[in-house]
Amino acid sequence: MHEKLYNVLIKRAFIIPTSEIYNSIAGFYDYGPIGASIKNRIISLWREIFLKEDGFLEIDGSTILPEIALKASGHVDNFNDPLVECLSCKRRFRADHLIKEALQVDASHMSIDELTKTLSESGLQCPECGGKLSEVKPFNMMFSTYVGAVGGTASYMRPETAQNIFMCFNKIFNTYGAKLPMGIGQVGRSYRNEISPRQALIRVREFTQMELEYFFDPDNEGESLEKVKDTVVPLQTRQQQRDGKDFDPVSLGDAYANGDIPLKTMAYFMAKEKRLLNSVGITNFRMRYLMEDETPHYSGGNYDVEIPTKFGWVEVMSLAYRTNYDLARHKEFSGKNLEVTVESKKVLPHVIEPSIGLDRLFWCALEHAYVEDKERGWDWLNLPPRIAPYDVYVLPLMKKDGLGEKAMELSKDLMVMFDIYYNESGSIGKRYAKADEIGVPYCITVDYDTLQNNTVTVRFRNDAKQVRVPIDQLCGRLGQWKYNSVVEASKSGLDIIMG
Amino acid sequence: MHEKLYNVLIKRAFIIPTSEIYNSIAGFYDYGPIGASIKNRIISLWREIFLKEDGFLEIDGSTILPEIALKASGHVDNFNDPLVECLSCKRRFRADHLIKEALQVDASHMSIDELTKTLSESGLQCPECGGKLSEVKPFNMMFSTYVGAVGGTASYMRPETAQNIFMCFNKIFNTYGAKLPMGIGQVGRSYRNEISPRQALIRVREFTQMELEYFFDPDNEGESLEKVKDTVVPLQTRQQQRDGKDFDPVSLGDAYANGDIPLKTMAYFMAKEKRLLNSVGITNFRMRYLMEDETPHYSGGNYDVEIPTKFGWVEVMSLAYRTNYDLARHKEFSGKNLEVTVESKKVLPHVIEPSIGLDRLFWCALEHAYVEDKERGWDWLNLPPRIAPYDVYVLPLMKKDGLGEKAMELSKDLMVMFDIYYNESGSIGKRYAKADEIGVPYCITVDYDTLQNNTVTVRFRNDAKQVRVPIDQLCGRLGQWKYNSVVEASKSGLDIIMG
Repeated sequence: MHEKLYNVLIKRAFIIPTSEIYNSIAGFYDYGPIGASIKNRIISLWREIFLKEDGFLEIDGSTILPEIALKASGHVDNFNDPLVECLSCKRRFRADHLIKEALQVDASHMSIDELTKTLSESGLQCPECGGKLSEVKPFNMMFSTYVGAVGGTASYMRPETAQNIFMCFNKIFNTYGAKLPMGIGQVGRSYRNEISPRQALIRVREFTQMELEYFFDPDNEGESLEKVKDTVVPLQTRQQQRDGKDFDPVSLGDAYANGDIPLKTMAYFMAKEKRLLNSVGITNFRMRYLMEDETPHYSGGNYDVEIPTKFGWVEVMSLAYRTNYDLARHKEFSGKNLEVTVESKKVLPHVIEPSIGLDRLFWCALEHAYVEDKERGWDWLNLPPRIAPYDVYVLPLMKKDGLGEKAMELSKDLMVMFDIYYNESGSIGKRYAKADEIGVPYCITVDYDTLQNNTVTVRFRNDAKQVRVPIDQLCGRLGQWKYNSVVEASKSGLDIIMG
Repeated sequence: MHEKLYNVLIKRAFIIPTSEIYNSIAGFYDYGPIGASIKNRIISLWREIFLKEDGFLEIDGSTILPEIALKASGHVDNFNDPLVECLSCKRRFRADHLIKEALQVDASHMSIDELTKTLSESGLQCPECGGKLSEVKPFNMMFSTYVGAVGGTASYMRPETAQNIFMCFNKIFNTYGAKLPMGIGQVGRSYRNEISPRQALIRVREFTQMELEYFFDPDNEGESLEKVKDTVVPLQTRQQQRDGKDFDPVSLGDAYANGDIPLKTMAYFMAKEKRLLNSVGITNFRMRYLMEDETPHYSGGNYDVEIPTKFGWVEVMSLAYRTNYDLARHKEFSGKNLEVTVESKKVLPHVIEPSIGLDRLFWCALEHAYVEDKERGWDWLNLPPRIAPYDVYVLPLMKKDGLGEKAMELSKDLMVMFDIYYNESGSIGKRYAKADEIGVPYCITVDYDTLQNNTVTVRFRNDAKQVRVPIDQLCGRLGQWKYNSVVEASKSGLDIIMG
């Protein structure tokens, strides 16, 4: 199914391979108008759920960072992928991916030496030319550049948005009331020089992250669990993983009591992650407690949110308890005291980080919305109205006889309250098909009756039914249908955001 | 005055030098919460004025582009600054800036050879150490990197957002109704490796652009002038520049008739540029028709919008008639036929580009809003409500006695309609001062009377007057005041956007 979806995304220009006319470098996509609209609407949802509800702050930082900052964060020394090269054709591969594909062995946690050993013992050769493979070497995934004239400052495109926030924290803390907890978020580009980008938007080289860093005093965690203790999430505990078992639904209160969630506030953010997923139409996912050997030494416990796709389970969100590692490293490398004073006590705050890969979430939302529909004759996207690229399509039956002008005028009136797309090209059937295909929930058709009695036809994407509505009732009815779709989703047990 | 403004921006963390704890590289700023909010609100205004009104499209493209694309655009060969180096201390300078500062000569249009000649004839030495200066050399201003493992594809951080749009144009044209004119816009990061970044946000190395590419058939320009012919703008014609004269107010209709605007549609976009400027509170600017030797050979005529600042006149927007140069170059370099078919006719569309430097506009809006106020005892920002960082500040007189809870509850209610900042730290006077200083138009104070009779005090930023308002009338009254501020601005002759 993902090939069908990919084809729709390309055909309708949701996404366009960057510099496609030059046959593009792999791993870069431009978002066309429909894709950019969906992406922006997901960002709005994230802002509501992760920032506004709690009065958290948002910054917008530079994407080029100097080497020293990324030395401190550990990325210069440790942000590597295992690279293996064919000694004949010089093609390069990610060693763990090669082993997974050729030997069906999960090599994701093997060391460089283990990878080399596994490759040489298996006798594996270059999948392209059959040549001999090199030893495995670490390859740093950051894009490097120089700032200033020749011989300038070594710098990198940031590999995550988080580091700007850590470096700004002290300054913002003192400007914004000097209180803990404090949440600071950021939406922006990050960059990773993937050896083998693939799987459409899943593994790309330039992508958008939505990250929140929640700074708190570990001696004073607060009672955030209380609000979410009855929220049920599909959790996979460490014990379940050791036993080779699947995930189970469990309430956050119980999971915390069982010791399967390290901090109360992590449970609070897991409830938010669930709400964002449900709000973009994703009901099928699991929250997996990472095993000790999957997390960095400083971690207090990390969760991944994984979503089943046609590429397998994909990590789309994470929730990391980073302790005070990042602030401690920046303190050490900068020589600045980054401790803050809260009620006469010095604290180097701990951090919980819910981090979301927007491009992956976008892909998963579309894959979950994809409906194969032989009966209708075309496939369509069952996107929740909140993230549909447009609220309403407005179509004149014909351009002529004043229908075009009337439909255009209606579009302008509706534009005050809704995102409208006006389309006058092609047969009505083809235009309905296109609206369905890009997930627009409502089509409004202006026809000859409209000129007589000021009514229009509204067609619903999900059941293709049509009703006749007077134009002066249109705004209210559209608002009501949008609202009803949320209520119905809520009734069926989804935790989704209104408005 | 700009030092005072800069100090406020730093003190209140509107902007924070990127990786400040490591003493930052010059020319990079992170936007803190207040700055990011103002920036996002300016972006919303731009979207309304430049895209939504006309049904134009928006894309969101990659910031890393392959070398071939920027070969085609001319940036690899021609996007250079003149670099001169001190042969003793090795410091580097921009030759034209050095000449301007030391000799008060405008060197902005001198060739490399002319710059070298001017420097050597003047006997100018290194301003830092008095050493001998090198010859002037061209220095490419793009940040370069490599995509893929060692020996990968030479690539650059894009120097403008426009190139993504040109490369996507054909694809989007065919997906979106295949009609001209078609407008495609983009907001996003661009990057220029400035030799000497300076003047706060005016000359930085990473910045945000808001660009629109308007594609049209030059044989069928349409009647866009009609809508804006009476709009008056401060125009500086080429003749006025040759005569050493200043700009004059003139209607766009007259200016076009006089041959001072090369295309009707350029006048249309000049009216929009004026509207955006007025809407962010800028009334003092000029539109300067660039002289022939200031524009590239392919240009059909360019305008710069320049704003007076404490750094002198600054170019903040431009309006370029790029003819079909970019599409022709991409056609040549890619070997793809980028012509489109409109009513059975093959066209390689021409392009008009209104381009805006968001960081510069941000700075100018704040400089224009800055009010020195000895009487009040603190300076404040007279920002139009549409771009204030928050609509409303909510302050409890004290935290105790339930005032904090009441104020917090009120904040949550108002949040549905307004952007709220809740602040409970410090004396009321200090909190009013802070609200003024960051440009918040309304402060709401919750006091002991509130608990008795459910009224609050509303304080107005601009005159510091206060009125008592029942809470149940608050939403309506705030909306009315916001609306009135727009009406008053309109009455005083400003062309500003509502809503």
